[in-house]
Amino acid sequence: MTAKYALGVDFGTESGRTVLVEVGTGRELAMAVYAYANGVIDEQLPTSGARLPPDWALQDPADYLRTLSTTIPLTLQQAGVSADDVLGIGIDFTACTMLPVDGAGQALCADPRFANEPHAWVKLWKHHAAQPEADAVNRAARERGEAFLSRYGGKISSEWMIPKILQILNEAPHVYHAAARFMEAADWVILQLTGAERRNACTAGYKAIWAKDTGYPTPEYFAALHPELRTVVADKLSGDIYAQGERAGALPPSMAAELGLRPGTAVAVANVDAHVSVPACTVVGPGKMVMVMGTSICHMVLGTEQRMVPGMCGVVEDGILPGYFGYEAGQSAVGDIFAWFVETCVPAAYWEEARQRNLDLHALLEAKAALLAPGQSGLLALDWSNGNRSVLVDVDLSGVLIGLTLATRPEEIYRALIEATAFGTQTIIRNFVAHGVPVDELYACGGLPEHNRLLMQIYADVTGMPLKVSGSSQTPALGSAMFGAVAAGSQAGGYDTIVEAAAHMASLAPVVYARTPPPTLVYERLHAEYMRLHDYFGRGENNVMKTLKGIRDETHVASG
Amino acid sequence: MTAKYALGVDFGTESGRTVLVEVGTGRELAMAVYAYANGVIDEQLPTSGARLPPDWALQDPADYLRTLSTTIPLTLQQAGVSADDVLGIGIDFTACTMLPVDGAGQALCADPRFANEPHAWVKLWKHHAAQPEADAVNRAARERGEAFLSRYGGKISSEWMIPKILQILNEAPHVYHAAARFMEAADWVILQLTGAERRNACTAGYKAIWAKDTGYPTPEYFAALHPELRTVVADKLSGDIYAQGERAGALPPSMAAELGLRPGTAVAVANVDAHVSVPACTVVGPGKMVMVMGTSICHMVLGTEQRMVPGMCGVVEDGILPGYFGYEAGQSAVGDIFAWFVETCVPAAYWEEARQRNLDLHALLEAKAALLAPGQSGLLALDWSNGNRSVLVDVDLSGVLIGLTLATRPEEIYRALIEATAFGTQTIIRNFVAHGVPVDELYACGGLPEHNRLLMQIYADVTGMPLKVSGSSQTPALGSAMFGAVAAGSQAGGYDTIVEAAAHMASLAPVVYARTPPPTLVYERLHAEYMRLHDYFGRGENNVMKTLKGIRDETHVASG
Repeated sequence: MTAKYALGVDFGTESGRTVLVEVGTGRELAMAVYAYANGVIDEQLPTSGARLPPDWALQDPADYLRTLSTTIPLTLQQAGVSADDVLGIGIDFTACTMLPVDGAGQALCADPRFANEPHAWVKLWKHHAAQPEADAVNRAARERGEAFLSRYGGKISSEWMIPKILQILNEAPHVYHAAARFMEAADWVILQLTGAERRNACTAGYKAIWAKDTGYPTPEYFAALHPELRTVVADKLSGDIYAQGERAGALPPSMAAELGLRPGTAVAVANVDAHVSVPACTVVGPGKMVMVMGTSICHMVLGTEQRMVPGMCGVVEDGILPGYFGYEAGQSAVGDIFAWFVETCVPAAYWEEARQRNLDLHALLEAKAALLAPGQSGLLALDWSNGNRSVLVDVDLSGVLIGLTLATRPEEIYRALIEATAFGTQTIIRNFVAHGVPVDELYACGGLPEHNRLLMQIYADVTGMPLKVSGSSQTPALGSAMFGAVAAGSQAGGYDTIVEAAAHMASLAPVVYARTPPPTLVYERLHAEYMRLHDYFGRGENNVMKTLKGIRDETHVASG
Repeated sequence: MTAKYALGVDFGTESGRTVLVEVGTGRELAMAVYAYANGVIDEQLPTSGARLPPDWALQDPADYLRTLSTTIPLTLQQAGVSADDVLGIGIDFTACTMLPVDGAGQALCADPRFANEPHAWVKLWKHHAAQPEADAVNRAARERGEAFLSRYGGKISSEWMIPKILQILNEAPHVYHAAARFMEAADWVILQLTGAERRNACTAGYKAIWAKDTGYPTPEYFAALHPELRTVVADKLSGDIYAQGERAGALPPSMAAELGLRPGTAVAVANVDAHVSVPACTVVGPGKMVMVMGTSICHMVLGTEQRMVPGMCGVVEDGILPGYFGYEAGQSAVGDIFAWFVETCVPAAYWEEARQRNLDLHALLEAKAALLAPGQSGLLALDWSNGNRSVLVDVDLSGVLIGLTLATRPEEIYRALIEATAFGTQTIIRNFVAHGVPVDELYACGGLPEHNRLLMQIYADVTGMPLKVSGSSQTPALGSAMFGAVAAGSQAGGYDTIVEAAAHMASLAPVVYARTPPPTLVYERLHAEYMRLHDYFGRGENNVMKTLKGIRDETHVASG
């Protein structure tokens, strides 16, 4: 019998990638990446060249389509696999990454009448300019005593769907009115693939305040935000939501031809990169936290009971695996902070040394930082350069570095930044545990674990928990392929449940990171200091970060 | 009549320099610099190679003698001036920079029996390892209700003479016992030049707890610090103190020959670099703050009444000019912070751009930072990378950077560091004014004003005061030459008072920095935020900086 295959497409922040996976074994036969031509649009609009305000982050939806048409044929070609043996496709996306769509299902920014309108483009997950709208969303929810708030840790993030829609309505009402739909980019890609609008439960649940039992917030709540928003659900969203693991549809002949696939290839409903990684890391039960570690970290854990955990991103029943409550938390910048540091703060002598030793700068800094003992630098940082997602849920916070002396070295700052992100994760774990969601083990996947052994070891040392690593270097894409195999079903040679798919297709790397013996109390003490600064700057005692951003924004207005 | 000349020798942190000045006009005819062969010794001892603990900073006294023998003949040669026309020499020094001296007046570290003993070397002003001893000095003074404390802002610094002596007694009693004298390096150089121990009132007053009316603290006080310290004044210091402007003596033939000068050339008592700069900046009355701006800043102001100002470094009657109370305050790191940043935190692309534009990195960063509006970066820093001298008097504080984002640029950090040092100066000025010492105008000298227009403008904008700049690029050395002319006296062709010398020899640069119109409130608001962090981290509410240094020191012990 011929081996069967599934495709997983992972839409990231800077690029999209496809893996071709053998359904019976999980073996990844081929991988292809498309770097988005327009990348993250945070300085100026590609069409008009107009400058964007601070905190904006857009994308070009055409980059998503180019990802499909470029990478899918490439993987088949690389692997020498026939389209007839490809059973299904799954996709995963960053979220909430959303866009306005016209009545024909086209992105509004592709319409020449809206091409120069920033609000017509995709708002990327890290678009942080809807904070006033998030404040309004939270204020109205608190005033009306909306029960949904506690499902989201007490706070709706400015990154999510409703604040982003409200920002469009506030700042560009003509775009709001012209939009037939507001969609997650994930669901929009499924619409492009299948011709059908099949919204997934994961983004609806975690990002759009939807729940299986109660649906979206009420029209009265939406009207409290803005009179015109009263009918937003009926007019521009959809209550027709499909659970993870369901089939969205199949490729029609035209799309199949464009992608070099068989017409009728099964397509799974879309997923979120973090959530799809849980079964791909072999995790199908509670107590095991999966961390998708890249530019940011998403923390996912399954629980057997619904707990209201303050500052988590959300809890969604069946939101990750059926039969469990899926919990999500996150850190808004991790790899992004290291990348910023390496690009911005490393002196020429280190570039030269890296060149001579044939290392990249990260590797050089890691080598130097690995020689330091915990606490040796005297530095402590707060990892808030892109705000704080959990447990403070506040994008207006900013990064701090404390303990600088005239002897401070670049590798000491680099290590302090790594440690700060580990303290951020430790803070999230302790918050879950304190509110009744057990966490005993860590599982890491994403871009960081593979190349950053020091980072992994520091996370194990800070948390004191064993840290396992995904066997795939493309975990979300593997997870998507697993869901593609489930969309095809066992009769076609796939699987009927994601648990079965995980048993056959998911694996772990041979390495396990454990706390370095003997146990040191240094990280406990540093984490205590971190928590004190965390609460001082993050819980309103000293709002200097907001004051500084306020002054900054005034100067932009004055000079703009 | 032939023109007459005076020599001024300025002993700095990294080098010593001599200027040859025409007595009638203040014209500087020649200048020569000697970069100390052993520089600042803060990593390992040049003799044994032994590693030094954190916070140590030593110097080699042989570097001071090499400064004299190298630079003095060079200036005469450059200017083509005859030794017969050189009336006098003055010197100034960093302080408290002190050393143990044997019975023959030689530095103890020059004795082979002590060459490998770190405590036998010169302790530079920025040696900060005597903090436990400073704590003991302050505790004993408070417990005994010693009146002297309020003359020093309520706190004796670890940088000063008595804590440094006590550290030697505590850690190396054999060095303490072997020392016939503990001397300021300034006075020790005068001893080498003239053969006579003529200690100056400025270092005795500001650094060794001596006052004209009450002398040193009592034997009972010293005994409370350590039983063996009871007789330290009689045994190892000297109550025979000479006022600024007095003559220390004259060059004996042997020393005159070594320096290429006339035997009998007048030598003034030594001075401190900051204090000697006041008349050299034309300042001979109250309300005008002189800032010696280099690696650190010393702030000097004359007052007509004695005020007890908390957190100042000291007030000494006649300590700067006769007839006034001389006030001193300071910031422990300013230029040092910028130098650290440029060396440690500027990426390769900027080095390349600087090379292409033929700028040094400071100039490149200044050019980029000058394009930013106040507050535009959203950053705020605390300028405590070398502790805080005024008004907190605490070397265990450290630097902070707050407001970091993923968009933060190097020039934004550079500007925030400049602004932080300006806020540090503003804090010192407001503290003086609040305690009855008027400050209306600023005068700058030292290495920074000449090359850093942005820095000067920011100080004017932050303080709102006009900022004038010394006409000399070697202000302390010019001041020393002025005192050399006073040591010679009018009958020899010099002057009888420093006020007369200032009238003829001191001058200002043509530029005056004034606050940029229209006045912005941004710096007021940023300074308010600075003060809140200043008090939070600096006055005991959150001692995280000390905790971090404590953990750091434990790791050094564990690995040492």
